[in-house]
Amino acid sequence: MIRFAHSVASLRSSEIRDLMSLATAPDMISFAGGMPGNDLFPLETIDQIYHSLTDREKQVALQYGPTAGLPSLMESLADYLEKKGLPVKSNRLMITTGSLQAIHIMAKAFTDPGDTVLVEAPSFIGALSAFRACQAELVSVPLKGDGMDMAKLEERLESTRPTPKFLYYTPNFHNPAGIIYSREVKRQMMELLKGRNIPVIEDDVYSDLYFHEEDLPEMTLMKAVDPEGINICYTGSFSKILGPGLRLGWMLVPEEIYKRCELIKQSLDACSPSLSQVIADKFIRGGYIYSYTAEMRKAYRERGEAMIEALEKHLPTSVSFVRPRGGFYTWLQLPEGTDATAILKKAIEKGTVFVTGKTFDPDGVKNDYMRVSFCNTDAEAIQKGIPLIAEAIKDVI
Amino acid sequence: MIRFAHSVASLRSSEIRDLMSLATAPDMISFAGGMPGNDLFPLETIDQIYHSLTDREKQVALQYGPTAGLPSLMESLADYLEKKGLPVKSNRLMITTGSLQAIHIMAKAFTDPGDTVLVEAPSFIGALSAFRACQAELVSVPLKGDGMDMAKLEERLESTRPTPKFLYYTPNFHNPAGIIYSREVKRQMMELLKGRNIPVIEDDVYSDLYFHEEDLPEMTLMKAVDPEGINICYTGSFSKILGPGLRLGWMLVPEEIYKRCELIKQSLDACSPSLSQVIADKFIRGGYIYSYTAEMRKAYRERGEAMIEALEKHLPTSVSFVRPRGGFYTWLQLPEGTDATAILKKAIEKGTVFVTGKTFDPDGVKNDYMRVSFCNTDAEAIQKGIPLIAEAIKDVI
Repeated sequence: MIRFAHSVASLRSSEIRDLMSLATAPDMISFAGGMPGNDLFPLETIDQIYHSLTDREKQVALQYGPTAGLPSLMESLADYLEKKGLPVKSNRLMITTGSLQAIHIMAKAFTDPGDTVLVEAPSFIGALSAFRACQAELVSVPLKGDGMDMAKLEERLESTRPTPKFLYYTPNFHNPAGIIYSREVKRQMMELLKGRNIPVIEDDVYSDLYFHEEDLPEMTLMKAVDPEGINICYTGSFSKILGPGLRLGWMLVPEEIYKRCELIKQSLDACSPSLSQVIADKFIRGGYIYSYTAEMRKAYRERGEAMIEALEKHLPTSVSFVRPRGGFYTWLQLPEGTDATAILKKAIEKGTVFVTGKTFDPDGVKNDYMRVSFCNTDAEAIQKGIPLIAEAIKDVI
Repeated sequence: MIRFAHSVASLRSSEIRDLMSLATAPDMISFAGGMPGNDLFPLETIDQIYHSLTDREKQVALQYGPTAGLPSLMESLADYLEKKGLPVKSNRLMITTGSLQAIHIMAKAFTDPGDTVLVEAPSFIGALSAFRACQAELVSVPLKGDGMDMAKLEERLESTRPTPKFLYYTPNFHNPAGIIYSREVKRQMMELLKGRNIPVIEDDVYSDLYFHEEDLPEMTLMKAVDPEGINICYTGSFSKILGPGLRLGWMLVPEEIYKRCELIKQSLDACSPSLSQVIADKFIRGGYIYSYTAEMRKAYRERGEAMIEALEKHLPTSVSFVRPRGGFYTWLQLPEGTDATAILKKAIEKGTVFVTGKTFDPDGVKNDYMRVSFCNTDAEAIQKGIPLIAEAIKDVI
């Protein structure tokens, strides 16, 4: 009998993981993953970057680096983030092993077992698993089309005991809900949070992948406002704008939070991969990041539009969805009470997969939604796969 | 006032970290680090490996991989470990983001706040910081020249309440003590642990860097024995045999422990860097790992011998040390009660750095030892720096 810690007894494998093996089977059309398209990686640029490396840079790539990140990348990334309007001078930047690590570190910095944290319903499952690993109690606030339900947020803020340790939200091209938070909702959130001493984790990994430039003003980040009296902890990632295989993300946070987080990171993996950091640094300094993200906006927009077209053509009228304006996902709302797991089983029989709604529900219950990704499927696969998804839905509802 | 978790309130920056900036200053002769020599990295091999990658392999390198590791690396690494006599077929292998992550994950799997764990005094500071981050209480067992003091271990096993959740030890070329555990001590440890339900974390990152082939029989791992009735959790790393900048380590553990650890890793960083994994896989499959580690044994042996020669020539007779037979470190025993921090201050004035004994003491007290590394200093720097170290010692004792 192995004596495991009580604190991890509740960690469970989620349905989505069991699906991932199916999702990558060669004959399966997968709308399940949240990864960039394999065919879209900037291989030639990576080659150019590799060939440009000096022996000294290769030594740096193979050596330990500072816990907070390689100085050269910290500088180029700060410049990149400053161009987005983020307050890099009045905050501290830390490179992390993916943005999930940044979220995990902050959850660890803020929560003791039994503490409450405010999350969206639905929410990014990676963050939920990090919060569960810290034994936080998830208090969910439902999403509407333009962000969190403000009345519900206010109610949770008033009634949740003990006082929540932080609020976690994803402002742009939400995973899984596909929405953008409106400027007005963010303004109201900041208003509600003022004076409560509840930091915000603003997890923004998709914002470079907008389809419509006119959305940019609406997408203004809380961290860009950085309001007096609220600690906004901003996280981002190279996963969607270069490659998740590098495992590189970052946090931009107030000094005092940074200090605590650096100590936690030190105990986790000492530093993030130097090889990846050297490449990411060159990717920014060479200006490749600007041309590549422009290309990706176009590529994912084509996929997103193919998805909208296919869904509009094939979905039964009782199923609705928000038309994606960026990012990787569409989020289908099924007739109330439908069991998406039953649809999934049918879909797998037909040779296609997606992810069920309850996977993203902090309470693990609400299942009349489904996430259908268009990130790693081209227009042709979308045209072939969505009719199968629609058939599976019709078989069940 | 930011409300941080109570659980991380005790994390403190260690003296060694503040030293690291000094240790890397260009005009400082550093005996402080635990990193491979910058001049020893296999840059040409990495070039060859990069050039051999197909587009498909580059896509894999940029994409998310399975949480437990890329299948191809799991296979080649299993083969490498099997050649060392490790039971890869009856255990599960997991790739981690450095071996520190493997240790952190296991600490998290086994301990709740306030649990006790058995560690060596002195001990690897990375592991100590991981255990502290899990709020474990460190119960230390002093080291002798051939491993843990068996009488003390027996005493701790009998008297420690609550029962320790695991025992952590580093069998070969100990950091910082430089010793090898004898076969007899390991046999006695297994004897003492039998039937107690206390798993062993066997952290073995230096064993490829032996200077004398005749030591190999003595270096037989507990995991190679894998005794019935004790869960031996083996960890290793690419940091000392390829490059720490890749951030790749592994654990080889029983199935039930593996399952729990996989869930924890999922919440930490989803997967280890794929780019690093693709390179490490080719490094093994191309056979480079065998020729490179042979070369490194020779290179570090030369440094180790230069260190022994310089220490014998310059140290006052009241300071003793164990002659290293592998690895990166010499461990100097000062006259009882000497304050190594006072010596460090003098050494810095003279243009050289090392790490004080108390840094490695689980209780943070015992300071009449010092760690002097020879890994990232060539023979010339050793000949130049050790007289300065000796002078600093003479200034204080």
